[in-house]
Amino acid sequence: MIKIASRPFDFLDKAIGKQILVHLKEGKDVRGKLEAFDQHMNLAISDATELEDGEKKQKIGQVILRGDNIFYIST
Amino acid sequence: MIKIASRPFDFLDKAIGKQILVHLKEGKDVRGKLEAFDQHMNLAISDATELEDGEKKQKIGQVILRGDNIFYIST
Amino acid sequence: MIKIASRPFDFLDKAIGKQILVHLKEGKDVRGKLEAFDQHMNLAISDATELEDGEKKQKIGQVILRGDNIFYIST
Amino acid sequence: MIKIASRPFDFLDKAIGKQILVHLKEGKDVRGKLEAFDQHMNLAISDATELEDGEKKQKIGQVILRGDNIFYIST
Amino acid sequence: MIKIASRPFDFLDKAIGKQILVHLKEGKDVRGKLEAFDQHMNLAISDATELEDGEKKQKIGQVILRGDNIFYIST
Amino acid sequence: MIKIASRPFDFLDKAIGKQILVHLKEGKDVRGKLEAFDQHMNLAISDATELEDGEKKQKIGQVILRGDNIFYIST
Amino acid sequence: MIKIASRPFDFLDKAIGKQILVHLKEGKDVRGKLEAFDQHMNLAISDATELEDGEKKQKIGQVILRGDNIFYIST
Repeated sequence: MIKIASRPFDFLDKAIGKQILVHLKEGKDVRGKLEAFDQHMNLAISDATELEDGEKKQKIGQVILRGDNIFYIST
Repeated sequence: MIKIASRPFDFLDKAIGKQILVHLKEGKDVRGKLEAFDQHMNLAISDATELEDGEKKQKIGQVILRGDNIFYIST
Repeated sequence: MIKIASRPFDFLDKAIGKQILVHLKEGKDVRGKLEAFDQHMNLAISDATELEDGEKKQKIGQVILRGDNIFYIST
Repeated sequence: MIKIASRPFDFLDKAIGKQILVHLKEGKDVRGKLEAFDQHMNLAISDATELEDGEKKQKIGQVILRGDNIFYIST
Repeated sequence: MIKIASRPFDFLDKAIGKQILVHLKEGKDVRGKLEAFDQHMNLAISDATELEDGEKKQKIGQVILRGDNIFYIST
Repeated sequence: MIKIASRPFDFLDKAIGKQILVHLKEGKDVRGKLEAFDQHMNLAISDATELEDGEKKQKIGQVILRGDNIFYIST
Repeated sequence: MIKIASRPFDFLDKAIGKQILVHLKEGKDVRGKLEAFDQHMNLAISDATELEDGEKKQKIGQVILRGDNIFYIST
């Protein structure tokens, strides 16, 4: 109904293969390389690291991250 | 069913390319330039800054912000 | 299936152009003039003021308010 | 698939024009006259009063109440 | 896709006209006679009593109870 | 779109008539015999017992348990 | 609308038969072998162990895990 030049998912598409930071609920962050995403904003991330309150908590390797709990994705 | 002259998303459309402030759950705010949005109120914002309790917390660059966690968008 | 004389959204339609008070989750209120709404109860409000615990917190100008977080709208 | 004699919304339909008490999340109650409802359990209530922990807090006039936050409606 | 002999709602159907206990979020319980239900698990209950932490809190008469906040229904 | 040999609900189907433990939100558990389930993961359980923090709290007989609040079902 | 080479669920598909770690809300983790999944990210896991704050809490055998409460799945 509304014509728009681009959409938020186009920006996600451009981030494929690049480092992203995903800011989640409950003060969690996940950093890593964006491998894939879908229309629910579910993400596949490789070489991922979990951070809590900005500090490195643990390496979590390859993860499938559920879109529901995302605040924002910094690309 | 209800005829209305304009819709909330029309106001969002007019804000494309302009500075906005997004007020999120858990006392978070994100400021930056609105690049794109979709029907779920997902936003793409450039030159974004995260604020916590009104104070600048960190620069977060370009972000894709999930519509679910938005309280309001000040345009 | 159920015949009803009017619907809640008809009452919202009558409030277009008038001052409303929106009572939100987390003890927030937004006052201002209703400009537009949609079927998700998303609202566009102009000359908006945010209140916290009933006291004026800040002017927020024109806002797009997400329907999800609304408790009630006082018209 | 299941044949039932009546449905919960029929009971709401019978309450149109009558005093109801709406018990909401976060310990809030709203009393007033039911004017309208829809299939999402959104309600329009006139001469409404908000109560907190059972005590009268403030008169809120005519309200559109979002169905999402309702625990139960006492008719 | 999966053939099943009966469904949870069949058990609810058998409880029509009988006393039930509804266990809700936030430690609330409602007891009363099941009058009606729909596919969202919304319930109409008559002669209802609200209990908090297992103790009788107040009589609430006839209620329409929203399915969203139900943990379980004991029939 | 993705071909998979079996689905989680097939495992639930095999548990019909058997003892299960349902781990719910807010630290609640329900044990009993699985009688029925539907596509929303709503369950009908007979001879059910509620446990809180792993300890038996009360017998709740036959229950219809809402799928929304389930963390996992141990079969 | 957007062409993408792979999707997050493809990564989940490759993890069938392998050990995964599921990070859930409320600080819970479940480890075990992925047996099946569906489009809601519901999972069937065998030889599962529940962990709380990273420490082994209890063996929970075969579980059906609801997709709603998942933060991420480490494969």
